[in-house]
Amino acid sequence: MTPGMNTLSAEAQQLLFTEARTANTFTDEPVSDEQVEKIYELTKFGPTAMNMQPLRVLLVHHDQRDRLLKHVADGNRDKTESAPLVAVLAYDPDFHEHLPQVFPHAPGAKDRFADPVAREHAARFNASIQIGYFLLAVRAAGLAAGPMGGFDAAGIDEEFFEDTGWRSMLLVNIGHPGENAWFDRLPRLEHEQAVRVA
Amino acid sequence: MTPGMNTLSAEAQQLLFTEARTANTFTDEPVSDEQVEKIYELTKFGPTAMNMQPLRVLLVHHDQRDRLLKHVADGNRDKTESAPLVAVLAYDPDFHEHLPQVFPHAPGAKDRFADPVAREHAARFNASIQIGYFLLAVRAAGLAAGPMGGFDAAGIDEEFFEDTGWRSMLLVNIGHPGENAWFDRLPRLEHEQAVRVA
Repeated sequence: MTPGMNTLSAEAQQLLFTEARTANTFTDEPVSDEQVEKIYELTKFGPTAMNMQPLRVLLVHHDQRDRLLKHVADGNRDKTESAPLVAVLAYDPDFHEHLPQVFPHAPGAKDRFADPVAREHAARFNASIQIGYFLLAVRAAGLAAGPMGGFDAAGIDEEFFEDTGWRSMLLVNIGHPGENAWFDRLPRLEHEQAVRVA
Repeated sequence: MTPGMNTLSAEAQQLLFTEARTANTFTDEPVSDEQVEKIYELTKFGPTAMNMQPLRVLLVHHDQRDRLLKHVADGNRDKTESAPLVAVLAYDPDFHEHLPQVFPHAPGAKDRFADPVAREHAARFNASIQIGYFLLAVRAAGLAAGPMGGFDAAGIDEEFFEDTGWRSMLLVNIGHPGENAWFDRLPRLEHEQAVRVA
């Protein structure tokens, strides 16, 4: 590594990347408000195009879990039921309404997103990048994440997002890993398979 | 934070999230092969649906930079010209060909992606999440990242990806921050604006 620049410590590399795993079971230990705060406080600093920050997060505690479970695929229901906290990660197709706040030096920025199709594309792409930040931020807060795609997105949007217009993308079970929380680590693509030099 | 679980150190939080910034200028100091290796070695461990890992990376050094620059928007050309390394982040619409390697316990997994439209959607979504991992991995390797969306994607795909079919999503200038590398930090959405409780 280059002298003079900090690099991530071996311990932090393990926590976020090399030793971190997707949890399939959780203990009863709750997720604290402080941890929820920390997840967002880190996630929000990751870069997005024009600082648009389209990611939205709905936290579903146990008292509202049944409303979520009925839209979750059968094979995923048990772990989503047992997780202390479930986050519905979504994007806001009307993120551009916040551009005067988050991109204040360019007063016309909002008008560049008048076209709803282009706006939705930008929202989905940038919120997906933010999902990457979010999942690593869950780990940074000392928690395990279980991202899950098997759910009825239209059903969840109707159930939870009629007032906001948010669109769900991913469920994330969050908590402390329980018994037999991990499957075996699956193989990763080799460097040569994923990275090329022009 | 919960006793017994590791959390990310304050120093690492600063390096990856709270103090990290998008660089707009770079020094001449090159990016080492070791750093390039490290970026991928961390990125690859982030979770994707069915371990599909659709992200692909094309590294463009100075000797091939002109081929890239002609597809880059005017306002972005100077920084892309000066960066020691530029990565074109793309997805592989035929990622499913690798599922027998990366998801070996489910022999029929590849067949679930016979529909090219659904496959492309999955590839774009999961590769976008991996972009989040990649940008934080650049920082973990002691480098600054400058993600950039202003380019002609079809032109770049024709220039570089005719043989692979990869589709470009984002350019990332990579190197050591130069003079006046940062703009002022832009405002982030407040917790209450982005996070709700069901």
